[in-house]
Amino acid sequence: MAETKHQRTEPQYELLYHPSIPGRGEFVRLMFEAAGVSYADVANDNPPDDSGPNGYGLVQAISSPDSTGDDDGNPPAFAPPALRIRGAGKDGKALVIHQTPNLLLYLGGPLKLAGSDEPEKYYVNQLALTALDLNNETHDTHHPVAVAKYYEDQKDEALKKATDFRENRLPKFLSYFERVLKHNQASGKGKYLVGESLTYADLTLWQVIDGLKFAFPNEMRHRSSESPLLFDHFYPSLKNEAWMKKYLNSKRRKPYSMGVFRHYPELDRQ
Amino acid sequence: MAETKHQRTEPQYELLYHPSIPGRGEFVRLMFEAAGVSYADVANDNPPDDSGPNGYGLVQAISSPDSTGDDDGNPPAFAPPALRIRGAGKDGKALVIHQTPNLLLYLGGPLKLAGSDEPEKYYVNQLALTALDLNNETHDTHHPVAVAKYYEDQKDEALKKATDFRENRLPKFLSYFERVLKHNQASGKGKYLVGESLTYADLTLWQVIDGLKFAFPNEMRHRSSESPLLFDHFYPSLKNEAWMKKYLNSKRRKPYSMGVFRHYPELDRQ
Repeated sequence: MAETKHQRTEPQYELLYHPSIPGRGEFVRLMFEAAGVSYADVANDNPPDDSGPNGYGLVQAISSPDSTGDDDGNPPAFAPPALRIRGAGKDGKALVIHQTPNLLLYLGGPLKLAGSDEPEKYYVNQLALTALDLNNETHDTHHPVAVAKYYEDQKDEALKKATDFRENRLPKFLSYFERVLKHNQASGKGKYLVGESLTYADLTLWQVIDGLKFAFPNEMRHRSSESPLLFDHFYPSLKNEAWMKKYLNSKRRKPYSMGVFRHYPELDRQ
Repeated sequence: MAETKHQRTEPQYELLYHPSIPGRGEFVRLMFEAAGVSYADVANDNPPDDSGPNGYGLVQAISSPDSTGDDDGNPPAFAPPALRIRGAGKDGKALVIHQTPNLLLYLGGPLKLAGSDEPEKYYVNQLALTALDLNNETHDTHHPVAVAKYYEDQKDEALKKATDFRENRLPKFLSYFERVLKHNQASGKGKYLVGESLTYADLTLWQVIDGLKFAFPNEMRHRSSESPLLFDHFYPSLKNEAWMKKYLNSKRRKPYSMGVFRHYPELDRQ
């Protein structure tokens, strides 16, 4: 059927992000995977050696330092990830939006991952924002001075930053999420941060915890007993969901490498 | 009239934030001021030497490191600012939410500062998020290693961070917002980032530019010719709005001091 083929080859949602790394695109991917909704991962789906257009070229175009917007009337994006949604823009054109928390907010409604009422919608949003702050602070442990320079050129500062992160910032965040799980324990059973079912707050936090376990394995092992709901209930129960296991074993899940989450043993607890 | 008095002494919206500094609370204050909607600024309105309760004590309680939530069923907050909205929570109780972008998002609808349709709602949100990223990067220029330590204890790193900020990050952000203004020039006339009227994206960006002019006066003067819409149209036109002039001259507007925006001459362009 032509309609089915069209839907399969041109999904409604297209993720525009760097190829080969989980990065900030991963928070968006997890929402689609959890909801079982198909999406195009433009750069990963269209490598430069393929016969079609270079997917990463399309990603770079939307945040080009010269762009004043696209042909559909969308303003320029500051940086990937961005999301293109067919038919959702002005006059039925494509809508292109950016900023990770904005993408999660946008998708939360249609993918039914934003809680069950208005208060929960804002609880979910604030928790995702807080998990993304932790994500950003993790990034800064290896790039405390200049995002565009090499880690090796700011290693002394990174050692200081990572020490402060492990000793002060990380435990503050972990304690916070543990207390949110405790607050919601009657409804969420330690599995969900808000209400009785999965939201994008859970997915976002899960991804950050997973990345931290890769980047700071010693520190995270040491901290696990301080936050039992988080480490013994929340993290493993989401990891063992059928859709998650399938996704983690797929080629769509990219390995951690030189993105936000990097394993530099010298930055971890010794 | 009792009802009027009740409304005056107990506004629907209460901002919970540190006293005496603009900080991240300022983005919320500007929304209320622009909309002409009354709000309580709990810590500033109730100083510790006053006869009533210590307002800052109430602020600290909601993000206490032991809190698992409040008596109205709200989860704990990670950090101020937070917003309490009477009657907006579950079962007509108070809703308490946190995370600056979440507060702006929440208020955008009722204060009519979130654009005129669904696409604009997400454009506004992504621009406010990007301006808040610039706010955070500004903060990190004087605290690149440890947020809880003194500037003087991380001054060498701050000099490096501020140099990268001035040379690479700041111009990237300024160029971006200039291009957004250009994209929207037919509708916004260089005065508004999205559509034909004021949104919280404008207010958020304005506050960050204003703070940067205080913190990095030389650098901002040097950069102003590169972004003429931003510096010659957007910034002054909003500063000259009647409500803004009134607000900036009021005691509700706090001076910059030891918050996000600090003027350390050694970090500025020499």
